[in-house]
Amino acid sequence: MSMSDQPEKESGVRKDSNSMWGGRFESAPADLMTEINASIGVDCRLWRQDIAGSKAHCRMLARQKILSAEDGAAILAGLDRVTAEIEAGHFEFRTDLEDIHMNIEGRLKDLIGDVAGKLHTARSRNDQVATDFRLWVREACQTLVTKISACRTVFATCAQAHKDTVMPGYTHLQVAQPVTLAMHLEAYAEMLSRDSSRFEDCTSRHNFSPLGACALSGTGFPTDPEWTARELGFSGAMRNSMDAVSARDFATEFLFACAQCGVHLSRLAEEIVYWSSPHVGFVRLSDSWSTGSSIMPQKKNPDAAELVRAKTGRLNGNLVQLLTVMKALPLAYNKDMQEDKTAVFESFDTLCLCLDAMAGMIESAAFDSVRMYQATADGYATATEIADWLVRELDMPFREAHHVTGRIVRLAEGNAGGEAGGRKCALDALHLAALQEIEPRITDDLYSVLDPKAALRSRGVL
Amino acid sequence: MSMSDQPEKESGVRKDSNSMWGGRFESAPADLMTEINASIGVDCRLWRQDIAGSKAHCRMLARQKILSAEDGAAILAGLDRVTAEIEAGHFEFRTDLEDIHMNIEGRLKDLIGDVAGKLHTARSRNDQVATDFRLWVREACQTLVTKISACRTVFATCAQAHKDTVMPGYTHLQVAQPVTLAMHLEAYAEMLSRDSSRFEDCTSRHNFSPLGACALSGTGFPTDPEWTARELGFSGAMRNSMDAVSARDFATEFLFACAQCGVHLSRLAEEIVYWSSPHVGFVRLSDSWSTGSSIMPQKKNPDAAELVRAKTGRLNGNLVQLLTVMKALPLAYNKDMQEDKTAVFESFDTLCLCLDAMAGMIESAAFDSVRMYQATADGYATATEIADWLVRELDMPFREAHHVTGRIVRLAEGNAGGEAGGRKCALDALHLAALQEIEPRITDDLYSVLDPKAALRSRGVL
Amino acid sequence: MSMSDQPEKESGVRKDSNSMWGGRFESAPADLMTEINASIGVDCRLWRQDIAGSKAHCRMLARQKILSAEDGAAILAGLDRVTAEIEAGHFEFRTDLEDIHMNIEGRLKDLIGDVAGKLHTARSRNDQVATDFRLWVREACQTLVTKISACRTVFATCAQAHKDTVMPGYTHLQVAQPVTLAMHLEAYAEMLSRDSSRFEDCTSRHNFSPLGACALSGTGFPTDPEWTARELGFSGAMRNSMDAVSARDFATEFLFACAQCGVHLSRLAEEIVYWSSPHVGFVRLSDSWSTGSSIMPQKKNPDAAELVRAKTGRLNGNLVQLLTVMKALPLAYNKDMQEDKTAVFESFDTLCLCLDAMAGMIESAAFDSVRMYQATADGYATATEIADWLVRELDMPFREAHHVTGRIVRLAEGNAGGEAGGRKCALDALHLAALQEIEPRITDDLYSVLDPKAALRSRGVL
Amino acid sequence: MSMSDQPEKESGVRKDSNSMWGGRFESAPADLMTEINASIGVDCRLWRQDIAGSKAHCRMLARQKILSAEDGAAILAGLDRVTAEIEAGHFEFRTDLEDIHMNIEGRLKDLIGDVAGKLHTARSRNDQVATDFRLWVREACQTLVTKISACRTVFATCAQAHKDTVMPGYTHLQVAQPVTLAMHLEAYAEMLSRDSSRFEDCTSRHNFSPLGACALSGTGFPTDPEWTARELGFSGAMRNSMDAVSARDFATEFLFACAQCGVHLSRLAEEIVYWSSPHVGFVRLSDSWSTGSSIMPQKKNPDAAELVRAKTGRLNGNLVQLLTVMKALPLAYNKDMQEDKTAVFESFDTLCLCLDAMAGMIESAAFDSVRMYQATADGYATATEIADWLVRELDMPFREAHHVTGRIVRLAEGNAGGEAGGRKCALDALHLAALQEIEPRITDDLYSVLDPKAALRSRGVL
Repeated sequence: MSMSDQPEKESGVRKDSNSMWGGRFESAPADLMTEINASIGVDCRLWRQDIAGSKAHCRMLARQKILSAEDGAAILAGLDRVTAEIEAGHFEFRTDLEDIHMNIEGRLKDLIGDVAGKLHTARSRNDQVATDFRLWVREACQTLVTKISACRTVFATCAQAHKDTVMPGYTHLQVAQPVTLAMHLEAYAEMLSRDSSRFEDCTSRHNFSPLGACALSGTGFPTDPEWTARELGFSGAMRNSMDAVSARDFATEFLFACAQCGVHLSRLAEEIVYWSSPHVGFVRLSDSWSTGSSIMPQKKNPDAAELVRAKTGRLNGNLVQLLTVMKALPLAYNKDMQEDKTAVFESFDTLCLCLDAMAGMIESAAFDSVRMYQATADGYATATEIADWLVRELDMPFREAHHVTGRIVRLAEGNAGGEAGGRKCALDALHLAALQEIEPRITDDLYSVLDPKAALRSRGVL
Repeated sequence: MSMSDQPEKESGVRKDSNSMWGGRFESAPADLMTEINASIGVDCRLWRQDIAGSKAHCRMLARQKILSAEDGAAILAGLDRVTAEIEAGHFEFRTDLEDIHMNIEGRLKDLIGDVAGKLHTARSRNDQVATDFRLWVREACQTLVTKISACRTVFATCAQAHKDTVMPGYTHLQVAQPVTLAMHLEAYAEMLSRDSSRFEDCTSRHNFSPLGACALSGTGFPTDPEWTARELGFSGAMRNSMDAVSARDFATEFLFACAQCGVHLSRLAEEIVYWSSPHVGFVRLSDSWSTGSSIMPQKKNPDAAELVRAKTGRLNGNLVQLLTVMKALPLAYNKDMQEDKTAVFESFDTLCLCLDAMAGMIESAAFDSVRMYQATADGYATATEIADWLVRELDMPFREAHHVTGRIVRLAEGNAGGEAGGRKCALDALHLAALQEIEPRITDDLYSVLDPKAALRSRGVL
Repeated sequence: MSMSDQPEKESGVRKDSNSMWGGRFESAPADLMTEINASIGVDCRLWRQDIAGSKAHCRMLARQKILSAEDGAAILAGLDRVTAEIEAGHFEFRTDLEDIHMNIEGRLKDLIGDVAGKLHTARSRNDQVATDFRLWVREACQTLVTKISACRTVFATCAQAHKDTVMPGYTHLQVAQPVTLAMHLEAYAEMLSRDSSRFEDCTSRHNFSPLGACALSGTGFPTDPEWTARELGFSGAMRNSMDAVSARDFATEFLFACAQCGVHLSRLAEEIVYWSSPHVGFVRLSDSWSTGSSIMPQKKNPDAAELVRAKTGRLNGNLVQLLTVMKALPLAYNKDMQEDKTAVFESFDTLCLCLDAMAGMIESAAFDSVRMYQATADGYATATEIADWLVRELDMPFREAHHVTGRIVRLAEGNAGGEAGGRKCALDALHLAALQEIEPRITDDLYSVLDPKAALRSRGVL
Repeated sequence: MSMSDQPEKESGVRKDSNSMWGGRFESAPADLMTEINASIGVDCRLWRQDIAGSKAHCRMLARQKILSAEDGAAILAGLDRVTAEIEAGHFEFRTDLEDIHMNIEGRLKDLIGDVAGKLHTARSRNDQVATDFRLWVREACQTLVTKISACRTVFATCAQAHKDTVMPGYTHLQVAQPVTLAMHLEAYAEMLSRDSSRFEDCTSRHNFSPLGACALSGTGFPTDPEWTARELGFSGAMRNSMDAVSARDFATEFLFACAQCGVHLSRLAEEIVYWSSPHVGFVRLSDSWSTGSSIMPQKKNPDAAELVRAKTGRLNGNLVQLLTVMKALPLAYNKDMQEDKTAVFESFDTLCLCLDAMAGMIESAAFDSVRMYQATADGYATATEIADWLVRELDMPFREAHHVTGRIVRLAEGNAGGEAGGRKCALDALHLAALQEIEPRITDDLYSVLDPKAALRSRGVL
């Protein structure tokens, strides 16, 4: 864990930084330049993709006789040894070697000697990093599709258990109509389904290989980029070499898909916080997903939900970051583009955590169906059912039906003056006679829609 | 054109606003509430979609016998009259009727009487506005696909005309290797192609109808949402009614697709500004797409390119807006969501303008191929070709080849001391003897890659 | 009210846009260029500032003998006539004259002839627009300071009326400790106070005049920029002419101050929505600031609060816009900077509306102090008081005091088994004997902190 | 250095994550909750502030007799031992202790026993973290003020050395008028000066202590928050306890100040990239601040400038993050606010690096004053001087002067037909006779403004 001292020392600048600009400038800048320039602290996560790309490239070079079979075999064996070292945790990532590509190539040379240098024939760091990063994002999309699916399964299981759990449906956070907890959770499952399809679209749209574009304009060597592309699971090679090294819309699209999914989760997170508040009390989170208070045993702080809600900020911020970086960048490669990876890695990690946390919270949550039902009845959530009944059964014009309904609700609220004596009651507790005082054509049949469950049944929800 | 006076009056607040909070509060707030609440100034753009949705809904109600055939016919005829009035410019949009839905329904009632009220049976403003807005965004996507295609055609035509126009390829804005103007423009055509496919994905992912969801939980009337959906060209009805009225990812996804396309255009815009600068001089914009100076006839301000570059700001800002609005909104409908349309309309208008402007600029631009070629040669853009030649022809290890190439370039730069007398020259102007002093195995064949065109030919670009 | 048809026509592009790029390109672009280039639709709001700047410049030119006294007088008189025309609504703003500066200068020439041209001596549109815009932003800051002050007055008045209104204080939306509504509102008054000071800082930091910088490097005419600066109420002239025409941090700082204030208001707006929800019921908004439902008379949709909450999106988006536009713009003037005004005008209008709406909502809101008090008592909000009492009076270590308190709360919750028979009650309804069973040293004095009001009194809040 | 494997493992989720949601849920969530909840990995940077705050609080408790003198002394001594351990690098930061406050308190208890628990009397983590973070941000502001000052000193030194270095002044990246490199750098020094004052305003506006607010509503203990405030260098205690624990505008304001400074630096960075491009060639960066190519010795990639330009993305993104997090958060403390520190720490580190890098680049850059001068002359940068001369000396109306100047420039461009034979030349190389053919009243005196240096002298720049 990195830990530091005071702001002025935390930026990694030596204590003598003030004197640094005072004339003896020679040595310090190198450190700063290294600090601003090196990316190994971030891009080491690409190691597996880098080696996969190098192996495909090496095989292609050998197939095309650009590399001898022996050299090719030596390089492949060397790359396997590097893999083993990294997996075993023995590999030393060196900042002076700047990035993951140089770290691996450097180690390869240690292991197999100068022949290592031939691996870079007909390749440049520009197409190499684009390849690595596209492979990584593709895997990240697949992981997120899996995690979203797991989250949806949790929602579906919970919805199945609560398909008859009536709760208030809100507009403007006011009780509007009865819904079920199942409907509510399934709405989120639908959102997540679209989120998932965005990651799938992102995968297929960008599943083309930049390898072979070299620095920006291809190579004179008789390479076979289509072969390498297929070897790496791409649908084909990118058509334009300048686009291949300079495009980053695969990354911004990924960041947007993460941000949108985060916004969806933030909505459910907000509802969990609201449902957990003592005045609402619809849900009690498990101890694993909340923090308590030793003083107030009834208190459950929905920390995980709050953090999921807050993470939207980071996900949106990361999207803004890369859109800002890419604004007005001329072709082809610019160092600015090195800033793409932090945002993508962070958004991936963040969204994984949010999805897992949300699945965990919902799976282990205890919903209070009694309190939900009571809130629905108290909220006169079936008032619109009355209006619909009047229109449907009595052929009353809509506006008149609204008016009659308003009088009925006021009666239930106890604000209707003499007739009901001012006692507040649920709609289905009103006497038929009282209803008929308002509208004589009302019959017993009206009660079939006053009960929230009946209302839901009439709409095919239950 | 709206024009106003002073900041303190511009917000539409009366001059007596200070006294307003001083006790006599009764009347003023209504105005402010109207101002903050009314959306007709924005959503009037949805009129055609609103009428299309209403006609489909009306036909469905009649098919399902919820509405009599006569009432249905009367409503349809009335809606046609409203259409005619709006098209003729005779329709008065009224702020007191708040939004486009109420404006049209209000006028319908004027025209056909109380039967107008039956149109709203089994519908709510919540599913109505979602339907209208989805229809609008779908058309907007189609328009943008067409405009992008037109822009790509312009790029392709220009590329065809410049397939042999050699220019410097840059990395870090430093001359790296020769490319052609055709390659350069085709890189942008590729980006635009992906931009277009994002609008197509946005269309197909969201082409489901929310109509039938009513306020948030459907209706007890025996409606046929699938029929309405197909009537309106949707692929089907949305599955979850709460999702139907509360989802806005169709709008954020549209905003992202606009922002990403804007970022791509901003990159070309930046290049046009750079190419237009006198020290570079690769392009001369037509008078239609630049502004001049009566004093300095040689000056051409690339205003249109600068504005396209700047519009990225608005497109990114609009995306941030809606992601921020939607963060942590509970289900189902909240008034917050009314803020979705401004952003979408603006991004659409902005991107249309940018695409048209970019197509216009490129189509009418005069590229200076002589100056481009000269810059390529002056920039030693074929230096990497030398290294490749040494590797390929002499089987020289890569690193040694780099070293030899460096000495050759220094020779051309005139920094190599005695031998060449310090005159700066292009690489292909160096004498063979001088080259052989550096590396004796170099032959005449090397000249075949020193010329930028030859280099491009070797890579299959020309 | 602008109203349009279909997306493809809405961008102002003619229907024949497809054929436009097909060869006969000559005429159309001019329209598009005009559309993308003209700013009069936006910058007409600067008319008063533009005339004020011109008058000061004219007087200075005359003082410095750069302009004759007669010419100066003629120009000043002409500018007064232009002012009168605009105030009377007779002025025609023309798009072909592009911006507010040319519109006014054009009209001035109509009115006073060629001498009008002399006004532009030793001035450029670059320093002119910077001056106008700074003057406008300065006034906007002052207006917002006034509006914030009015809003704070409303909060203070409401706080005064509710200084004894006890309500739950929340952390994590869980009831934590009793607070008063006055404290709650005063917290927002504090935030607004800092918001106000940000507008004041923005004013004073940027209250320097760019007039005299001309295009970017000053003028050879013997002007007196300090005199003009003071004439326009600036603290002085800007020191560097390139900075004068290219700086826009006065606008981004203004946009940030607006965004931050909007975030503060969004927090209170969220609380109003929450307080208005039927399960909480702490506040009832006046009819002027909510919308109702004819069916459900008890329903009050807090539309204005939701819209204030949503406006954060636009305010944040506008800030992102201008930060994006200004990123990486070389000195000095670039056309990109024309995009600054939309964002600033919009944020100003939006924030004015939000402040007025919030003041109106709070002033006319009816708070339910009974329900607030009940929610405080039900929430065991004084549990931490018990712990503090145990520490203070019995010198019990903190951790043990926590433990004892937990047992007491569980007793009140009715979860403590036999002793209290499982009935849920408020903390101050527990019998002393029952408390002493848990901790024998507890005395009657403990009741002095169990009542929320007593607790507040002990902290000096009441 | 953290390094990982594949996306699906990188989020810290165990390999068995898929099976995790399949029933055996009990153990895993705790890990995830810990992961999402723990902040010690981030907030360990606050250790020094946390100890300073605790010491001040401890002294106050003793002064107020809330703590005995012995206990106070023991705690202070213990905190000094913790300080020593952290400074020596012997302190173990433990994730299971969640945050920096618990880590330090935990260790204190190890060292001095149960008396450690008394430190938390009359304090809560809510006011504690707000205090720590405000102290940190205050120091960060001071550090940035110092770094900005150092950067301005570098600019001033460089400007002093180049006060006579003429270069083109641009508008729209077109050569407009001559300026000096000194003016250019001083424009940035002005921007930085305002950036610095924003950090100072941020310091003074927020230099009030939240300590004493406890959880959200103060304490019944007889504390002295004003004393603690002064002890910690604050101007006083915050007035409202709910505001004290829930306000984060000190952090967003800091983030904005960073973002704005980053935008300023990005503009200079863009110019350095442009100036470094071979077609412009105004500057040659030192080897320390650029990367080269072994093949192309003339190539200097301005990596550091590109990275500074790119960092704007992160700085803007961080601002968006926190504004998004804080949107619509109810009072008082919510866990969401834990997300504030990452953004602030990152923006601080990023801006420190950018300032140091920019100072380093400029201090060590070699400007090519010959090439700058030549570009100025070639660009007809003094054309506007001619117009001014005609107005001033011949009293020619401005518009006519423009027209005459246009003819002169066209003559110099060699586009003027027979008279000058079509040779392109600088303005001051035109013969007087040729000028007089265009306007007979022109005299020798005109040459005094045709030379860029003369022009600059006339404006008092040189």
